[in-house]
Amino acid sequence: MRVIFIVLMLCSAFLSSSVAESRPLSLMPMPASVQMKTGQLVIDPAFTVGISGPSEARLRRSAELFLDNLRRQTGMTALDMKVADAAHARLVVRSQGSSKDVQELGEDESYSLDISSAGATLDAATPLGVMRGLQTFLQLVQTTSEGFAAPALAIQDKSRFPWRGLMIDVSRHFIPLEVLKRNLDGMAAVKLNVFHWHLSDNQGFRLESKKFTKLQELGSDGVYYTQAEVRDLIAYARDRGIRVVPEFDMPGHSTAWFVGYPELASGSGPYQIERKWGVFDPAMDPTEERTYKFLDGFIGEMAKLFPDRYFHIGGDEVNGKEWDANATIQAFMRAHGLKSNQDLQAYFNTRVQKIVSKHGKIMVGWDEILRPDLPKDIVVQSWRGQDSLAGAAKQGYRGLLSFGYYVDLNWPASRHYTVDPMSGAAANLSPEEKQRILGGEACMWSEYVSPENIDSRIWPRTGAIAERLWSAQDVTDVNSMYQRLQVISRWLDWFGLTHNSSYGPMLRRIAGSDDISALRTFTDVVEPVKDYTREEIAAVEATSSSPLNRVIDAARPESATARRFAELIDVLIAGRADSAAKQEVRAWLTRWRDNQSTLQGLETQSFLLKEIVPVSQDLSAVAASGLQALDYIDRGERAPDAWAQQQFALLQEAEKPKAQLLLMVAAPVQRIVEASSGLKASSPPK
Amino acid sequence: MRVIFIVLMLCSAFLSSSVAESRPLSLMPMPASVQMKTGQLVIDPAFTVGISGPSEARLRRSAELFLDNLRRQTGMTALDMKVADAAHARLVVRSQGSSKDVQELGEDESYSLDISSAGATLDAATPLGVMRGLQTFLQLVQTTSEGFAAPALAIQDKSRFPWRGLMIDVSRHFIPLEVLKRNLDGMAAVKLNVFHWHLSDNQGFRLESKKFTKLQELGSDGVYYTQAEVRDLIAYARDRGIRVVPEFDMPGHSTAWFVGYPELASGSGPYQIERKWGVFDPAMDPTEERTYKFLDGFIGEMAKLFPDRYFHIGGDEVNGKEWDANATIQAFMRAHGLKSNQDLQAYFNTRVQKIVSKHGKIMVGWDEILRPDLPKDIVVQSWRGQDSLAGAAKQGYRGLLSFGYYVDLNWPASRHYTVDPMSGAAANLSPEEKQRILGGEACMWSEYVSPENIDSRIWPRTGAIAERLWSAQDVTDVNSMYQRLQVISRWLDWFGLTHNSSYGPMLRRIAGSDDISALRTFTDVVEPVKDYTREEIAAVEATSSSPLNRVIDAARPESATARRFAELIDVLIAGRADSAAKQEVRAWLTRWRDNQSTLQGLETQSFLLKEIVPVSQDLSAVAASGLQALDYIDRGERAPDAWAQQQFALLQEAEKPKAQLLLMVAAPVQRIVEASSGLKASSPPK
Repeated sequence: MRVIFIVLMLCSAFLSSSVAESRPLSLMPMPASVQMKTGQLVIDPAFTVGISGPSEARLRRSAELFLDNLRRQTGMTALDMKVADAAHARLVVRSQGSSKDVQELGEDESYSLDISSAGATLDAATPLGVMRGLQTFLQLVQTTSEGFAAPALAIQDKSRFPWRGLMIDVSRHFIPLEVLKRNLDGMAAVKLNVFHWHLSDNQGFRLESKKFTKLQELGSDGVYYTQAEVRDLIAYARDRGIRVVPEFDMPGHSTAWFVGYPELASGSGPYQIERKWGVFDPAMDPTEERTYKFLDGFIGEMAKLFPDRYFHIGGDEVNGKEWDANATIQAFMRAHGLKSNQDLQAYFNTRVQKIVSKHGKIMVGWDEILRPDLPKDIVVQSWRGQDSLAGAAKQGYRGLLSFGYYVDLNWPASRHYTVDPMSGAAANLSPEEKQRILGGEACMWSEYVSPENIDSRIWPRTGAIAERLWSAQDVTDVNSMYQRLQVISRWLDWFGLTHNSSYGPMLRRIAGSDDISALRTFTDVVEPVKDYTREEIAAVEATSSSPLNRVIDAARPESATARRFAELIDVLIAGRADSAAKQEVRAWLTRWRDNQSTLQGLETQSFLLKEIVPVSQDLSAVAASGLQALDYIDRGERAPDAWAQQQFALLQEAEKPKAQLLLMVAAPVQRIVEASSGLKASSPPK
Repeated sequence: MRVIFIVLMLCSAFLSSSVAESRPLSLMPMPASVQMKTGQLVIDPAFTVGISGPSEARLRRSAELFLDNLRRQTGMTALDMKVADAAHARLVVRSQGSSKDVQELGEDESYSLDISSAGATLDAATPLGVMRGLQTFLQLVQTTSEGFAAPALAIQDKSRFPWRGLMIDVSRHFIPLEVLKRNLDGMAAVKLNVFHWHLSDNQGFRLESKKFTKLQELGSDGVYYTQAEVRDLIAYARDRGIRVVPEFDMPGHSTAWFVGYPELASGSGPYQIERKWGVFDPAMDPTEERTYKFLDGFIGEMAKLFPDRYFHIGGDEVNGKEWDANATIQAFMRAHGLKSNQDLQAYFNTRVQKIVSKHGKIMVGWDEILRPDLPKDIVVQSWRGQDSLAGAAKQGYRGLLSFGYYVDLNWPASRHYTVDPMSGAAANLSPEEKQRILGGEACMWSEYVSPENIDSRIWPRTGAIAERLWSAQDVTDVNSMYQRLQVISRWLDWFGLTHNSSYGPMLRRIAGSDDISALRTFTDVVEPVKDYTREEIAAVEATSSSPLNRVIDAARPESATARRFAELIDVLIAGRADSAAKQEVRAWLTRWRDNQSTLQGLETQSFLLKEIVPVSQDLSAVAASGLQALDYIDRGERAPDAWAQQQFALLQEAEKPKAQLLLMVAAPVQRIVEASSGLKASSPPK
């Protein structure tokens, strides 16, 4: 079935011209179908929500949460904005069915929302659909000339994929419960429905076990979640229509387990909590029965704590060195005809899968777990790509895509946005095989995040991934995505996310001063290096003790200023720039050229500014280069070859990472220089 | 004993010139004595705190909280910044004595802090003193060219008054627990030690009673604290050295009690939760024994819940109308020789005091409770002033000053700062009588605050009140206070307070847009009307349902921009302005003059902007007037009388509140016009 789809942001006005005061809608993810109507529904302090048909506690809490959000968003604190009798409510909510005891994969999340000036109705098959529709409603509420209002319209909406997740690694840096909670609010806001909790890794075991207390006592530096906190978080997630899938990574990524329980390991120990990043040797011993006895006890305990049907055992990146070095293990492999470490891990997985299954759960693991001898009900999470995912589907396994959705790699939203689980080899699967591709997960690995900056690594870019997983496959307009993402980013402020609000305080700390205008001008046009370059070019190897207070930690993964500037340059080079656009380009370049002279004084008061001096000098030089190129263009004069070559050399230098930062305006300036000289630089602008 | 005092901010360099990279200290409240030394203590990820001498759980938690704050402030997330063995710790903390089971009034809070480049020691008589000293240490940590560091110095510090409080009214608008917690963090940061929790009033009864459940069930609209939450908050406060004093206002301000228990009232009922602001008629019936039986049960329950020795019964603003209208009460008064309603209330207070005392507590009440027949151990909180306070002290009663510390009245910090509990009649008290003046409390009445803007009404101005109550009486330099307050205001961001961070989102909501530059320029120079003018000039009477999303709700109680501008004008008129200062004045005026043309378009998209159009027009006209006056001055020409009179008329109009806002730059512009013309306006500039 083909869904009707309207690119809302691209329409400069509504279909109905009578709601002149309304602005383009900024919905994310984009609904399956939107039909605009005439008029708007006023949202004032007398606004009420009513539940019609079957009610239940979760549905009532959804309505209360909706009102809390609406109060925050509008600043209307009135307690008479409340859940009221459906017969008189301004917004009437109906769910045909009731909630499952434990939220299930594939529950119907569709809804239809009808808004007129007289009132609104939200219909759904389940309370989940109601939750999704309520978030859409919140996104529709605008400040208008007549008051807060939602435009009259009819929306039919449903999810493309049933598994839309966000993974947060709380091992490498511990992330406190309240930070997770605000991120769950953010997830709900963009209709994500699975929180994948990466609870253990080499750098920390972050959960209380009552059965094996040394896991947290010796493996966590004292920072872990109690079981009461876990239950609290699960309830919090459930009220937002989010499943919680725990991950305990094994047999590798497990050093933290061995601090308290060295007998589980394949090496001789003793083990310490790992302080560095990377892949490490320690791995569980798959040949000892005591390993499975322990895991049976542990998984049994965890299966009771986490109600979700799915249980993630990790399974990634075992380098096998401890196995190679252990004679008993080698003998075991020979005795059992296990020819490789992959075979040994497959043996381990088969044993663990039985334990997971015995405790009523379905096993999930990363790519590496996939071996044909595992039962078909497991789920494979692919960090390797769509081809790997398609391969699994062909073999009858269900899968999730995370390749392309690693938000810690500092990619632009547009790059995540173009990654589709159904592309590549997956596009050629049969309809039945396609059904096995459940969706995907954004992944937040935490080498370089703290409670202070984690939100800025997740948001707003995860909104683009959420749209990819919820909206129809043909919702691919990048410009529309960016326009809406910008609005949604600010809207997420109401949910307590700090991706916007933490920027100023971080810059003030770096500057050692209240006056951050020059530092902000600078930081607005740089980005952290991408992928794993931060490790690769580090002067000193980072550890879990490394402060996360540098410009790279404050800089946004994607510079909106540089993107805007690059757009202006495109327009300018195409000869379509009006005088305002030309003026804006010159204003930016002038500001950047002069910025270093302002910033210059400051590094004497802050050690955190020293490393950016060369980048700031580059910015100044690049901007000067751009201004000169503009002068040539404006004079209708062709820039001399020698001058252009000099600029290309300068720009090439400026594009190299320094202080682990990328100067994002060098590439567009290179395009101006090219346009002014008619020459091409030897390396094309990025 | 006269304390040694150094006005630190006024020194442009340290006493020792060898720490050239350090900046002036910004301590608030100012310590009793500071001696600068040579060098600085580096704060890096290996920083540790050790407890020497007697330890206890509260002291260890203080050290942990200190480290949490230090981590936030520096962005050093390292878990090896920890509480360690005192023999090797970078900061060694010693408390001679241990904590009392319940924190008491008058416990020793003094401390001495010694910092050298080798390490630091903090000595105190009690864990409370340690807490105060740790906050001072945090304020000393600066970003320097060599890293984070605290300057070498020796501080001796002690509190002037033993009772330094903040009252928050949670009845008129409910303030969620997490908002209170962050404000407790702010209190601890500026060494306040009493949280006075105004828990009941006409508009809501905000606490769970297990004995009289209808109090919260019918009197709170469903928003109240559970007893578990209260215990949680008390523990949270205790870990920060803060006592929690509950207030249950009686016999007036008590409508919310009567919704569930009309039999307590003097009228015939039925009663509804009050939705408006002001003083209302309902009052408890002091003549019925059932009233005292109820209060005995209720106070008994609360006395167990709240461990503090002091118990506040309110007692303010009884208008007596219900008493006048009740024949039985009138008969009782005649029978008992009670000649006035004041007499009747005194009778009530005497009875209530006995109940409070029976349950082991000392009664506190507002001015009105003071009658000579009450025992001398009660405490009077004065909203009437120092003379009333002195009167009480003369009669042998202890007292607290809150007159002059009402932060909801939107006064500038300087005005609160100059209010001293020992001034006026109090200055002439005997030493023994002076001992009875325990301190004071900032008061946050909540007619016009929500969780979103309450922090901006409390902070940073309460820092100035905290300094008044902690620091020596002769610490009165207003310029120094403002310079330090500005730094402390930003520093308070690390405690999660939202007085700075909520401004942008509120303006974005008002603008209905991300582009708030013009609105911010405008809002930066207006202030909410002062005192009770908001009520007095309201077009529509405000109620508890009134949205708190207008410019008046976002505007700061004190405009830093206007203060800076007025200072510049003073310099300019005195003929001491350099060209940079002159340029700054012109830049401001030009920006304000042109701002209305930018703002103009926006009101068509937001109803919240409509009301400020006349004020924005005034700003534009006032700025134009200022620029013309500057032109006259710069040309060395005397401005014509007729022109000046025209400007005075315009300025007088612009000084009138509109949209309940005050335009704070009109007065300084009036001074320029006066200087340019040699004339005086009929009303002097404010």
